[in-house]
Amino acid sequence: MRTSSYRAALARARLRPVGVIRSTLKSRKAAPRQGNEGAPDAWLEVEPSLAKGLLGMAVGDAIVVVTWLHRADRDVLRVHPRSIASNPLTGVFATRSPDRPNPLGLHPVVVRAIDGNRLRIGPIEAIDGTPVVDIKADC
Amino acid sequence: MRTSSYRAALARARLRPVGVIRSTLKSRKAAPRQGNEGAPDAWLEVEPSLAKGLLGMAVGDAIVVVTWLHRADRDVLRVHPRSIASNPLTGVFATRSPDRPNPLGLHPVVVRAIDGNRLRIGPIEAIDGTPVVDIKADC
Repeated sequence: MRTSSYRAALARARLRPVGVIRSTLKSRKAAPRQGNEGAPDAWLEVEPSLAKGLLGMAVGDAIVVVTWLHRADRDVLRVHPRSIASNPLTGVFATRSPDRPNPLGLHPVVVRAIDGNRLRIGPIEAIDGTPVVDIKADC
Repeated sequence: MRTSSYRAALARARLRPVGVIRSTLKSRKAAPRQGNEGAPDAWLEVEPSLAKGLLGMAVGDAIVVVTWLHRADRDVLRVHPRSIASNPLTGVFATRSPDRPNPLGLHPVVVRAIDGNRLRIGPIEAIDGTPVVDIKADC
């Protein structure tokens, strides 16, 4: 495959909404940096048209929720990790910074409850209104 | 945030090419189902314009490579896991199936070598020419 081919494949790609996070966390400032740093549980509302994709999901399952971090800065390539100025400048690809060219968030969570097309999940640091673009079994 | 808002945020989102997988695996049929099932190492060629984002990456680092599985079927919502007909029909969100509404692949790998903007990584089941959309430190 030539260099141009993968760029063309991606240019045609459009992310579809799979769901949305409904959380008590309302701002990026209020959110912990990672789910395991005191984040709350939240609801994941799956698009009704995609709810068939939840068949077999069970309370207690370990899953990975993939979000689109819509408040991130996509032009940042280097950060001081955890926004601590004394941490050495590091490429975003060597960090978990939300700021990066494609601001995809990976959230390993546990399914706490299932209510139709809504999953209670946690702990998760994503803020209210964050679009969800994928849900997977954890490996 | 109203329902319409997260859909609007996502509608504006466009994935940018971050890099591409260069692998000896040339077809989906030839690829193992997961990286830890006998997959080879491969090269990840990072876009030269984004190479600054690799600062601080080191041989031996555990990272997660996020790919866009461009050969996947985006209209599939239920599968027989591992394509074994006797496995019960399961929603794609409860599996690791590549077929799903947004075919994002998550690949936990180790950095074997670094050569400028190219990372030798593995093991990874992604086939040659697979677009890479994100690279993160593993948590």
